[in-house]
Amino acid sequence: MPKVLLATEKAFAADAVGKIEARFKEAGYELAKLENYKAKDELLAAVADAEAMIVRSDAITKEVFDAAKNLKIVVRGGAGVDTIDLQAGTDANVVIMNTPGQNSNAVAELAFGMMLTTARNHYDGTSGFELKGKSLALYGCGAVSRCMIKIASAFDMTVSALDPYLKPEQIEAAGAKPLTSIEQLFESQFVSLHIPATDETKKSITEALIMKMPKNACLINTARKEVIDEAGLKNVFANRADFTYIADVQPDDAAGFKEVLGDKFSKRCFFTPKKMGAQTSEANNNAGVAAANQIVDFFEKNDVRFQVNKPGQKF
Amino acid sequence: MPKVLLATEKAFAADAVGKIEARFKEAGYELAKLENYKAKDELLAAVADAEAMIVRSDAITKEVFDAAKNLKIVVRGGAGVDTIDLQAGTDANVVIMNTPGQNSNAVAELAFGMMLTTARNHYDGTSGFELKGKSLALYGCGAVSRCMIKIASAFDMTVSALDPYLKPEQIEAAGAKPLTSIEQLFESQFVSLHIPATDETKKSITEALIMKMPKNACLINTARKEVIDEAGLKNVFANRADFTYIADVQPDDAAGFKEVLGDKFSKRCFFTPKKMGAQTSEANNNAGVAAANQIVDFFEKNDVRFQVNKPGQKF
Repeated sequence: MPKVLLATEKAFAADAVGKIEARFKEAGYELAKLENYKAKDELLAAVADAEAMIVRSDAITKEVFDAAKNLKIVVRGGAGVDTIDLQAGTDANVVIMNTPGQNSNAVAELAFGMMLTTARNHYDGTSGFELKGKSLALYGCGAVSRCMIKIASAFDMTVSALDPYLKPEQIEAAGAKPLTSIEQLFESQFVSLHIPATDETKKSITEALIMKMPKNACLINTARKEVIDEAGLKNVFANRADFTYIADVQPDDAAGFKEVLGDKFSKRCFFTPKKMGAQTSEANNNAGVAAANQIVDFFEKNDVRFQVNKPGQKF
Repeated sequence: MPKVLLATEKAFAADAVGKIEARFKEAGYELAKLENYKAKDELLAAVADAEAMIVRSDAITKEVFDAAKNLKIVVRGGAGVDTIDLQAGTDANVVIMNTPGQNSNAVAELAFGMMLTTARNHYDGTSGFELKGKSLALYGCGAVSRCMIKIASAFDMTVSALDPYLKPEQIEAAGAKPLTSIEQLFESQFVSLHIPATDETKKSITEALIMKMPKNACLINTARKEVIDEAGLKNVFANRADFTYIADVQPDDAAGFKEVLGDKFSKRCFFTPKKMGAQTSEANNNAGVAAANQIVDFFEKNDVRFQVNKPGQKF
């Protein structure tokens, strides 16, 4: 039976650890735990006989892969794998996985919290507006957007979505009206971005698009700051007093926006100091449990759905 | 055909006025508008031949009733009728109505916005928690609570409610689990108050009840500050670091709470500077349109469902 190591410099919550333990006990696997370790040497010693490993933001370097002679799989409990040396792992024939989608609800709840805060003027006592009956367009229709659709429906919002990787009927099945162009997105009062930062999407949200938005327009960015054309956004701030930007990441030109917006800055350009969409105890715990399930499925069913590296791949 | 006066010191939004006009045109009634008036004399002159009247927070005094010889009905677009001299109106045989329930969604959205803001640490970048899967108990199961239930369901919250004026099956039909005692309410992580301030409810939310609440407890008060035993609440603040109070009204002893909570005050005792639950453009507009409908129903069908005074009543 495979030997699994749970190596977390910052441990999962006790509840999540309990569920991870239960999963491996059920599968009959041996689980070793190295939690809240302080020195790299502890990790190097612990991995020596591990065949599978669950990590969080732990630095899994070439040195770790070299020390882990039996290692077949590493699963990052979470989405980002930038703390893992993918080249070293691939060269050592280790399957590397993440646990996508486990933080989708956390991101969607953050978006709605910030939308309500904006609609009610940051609870300053003045009259605001309701989300009820308003239009919401989602750019990208993956896991976060599906959570957005569910919450939006309770507010009686009309929801549309654009996703070049999905068929119109798939978007419809998810509960949104399928759109066919980026321009159509910006006919909604709320536009929420759920796209990766790629060569195609970088700076793709332009001044012209945002200026098309209807009255009391609100652009929500829980994705990546790079997708925004910030020079264009600055012009929008200068020319539209009814426009609000909500972001789960500090814009590069926050100082420039502040200059244009003056004392309206904190309400019209409303962002978190650092990315926190996925930062809930539930999302972290979900990711740990998903990692345990993926390890069992890998050994039992050779399931590599969430693998992020290919054999022989060059990074 | 009845002559209606729309007398609003602070006018409804243009959209609402348009709908009010359309309603009376359809009914064949004559509508006079006195909007954004400055002096009481203008109002006294305008009411002289009015048979029905729509008002907002306008002071409808004995002098106004005396000047309105033909007046049969006054409808306040909104819930509160404390700006109307109920005794003088009743003595003049005028039916006085409010438009309850028109701001329910506005209140529920405010509550959820503040709940999400609390759960995510006021968007300060630190890890919070999700509403998903948590328990919410509603004290009172009227119009606001029904909106709360709808929104809570999209967050996969389990909702229970206590309402001494409803049968268990009515609460069940509204989508919540019926409770039988106040104590049971405080077994939920979120408790939201939707009760009036009466002799029975004043100071009824005690230290003992709040101390019963489970981990990360959150008490939401969009009702009236008087229902809270503030001395008890202060003790809770002193003894429970995981408890948050959300209120759509400034507590009387805000200064005392601040003393106990120190730099945790703004997050753990989170309140609006003045009551703003009903303060949305939609709620105001809904109230205006509802007032127009109620006037037509009064004349056409003798419908007095929303009457707040009884003939001969002493206030």
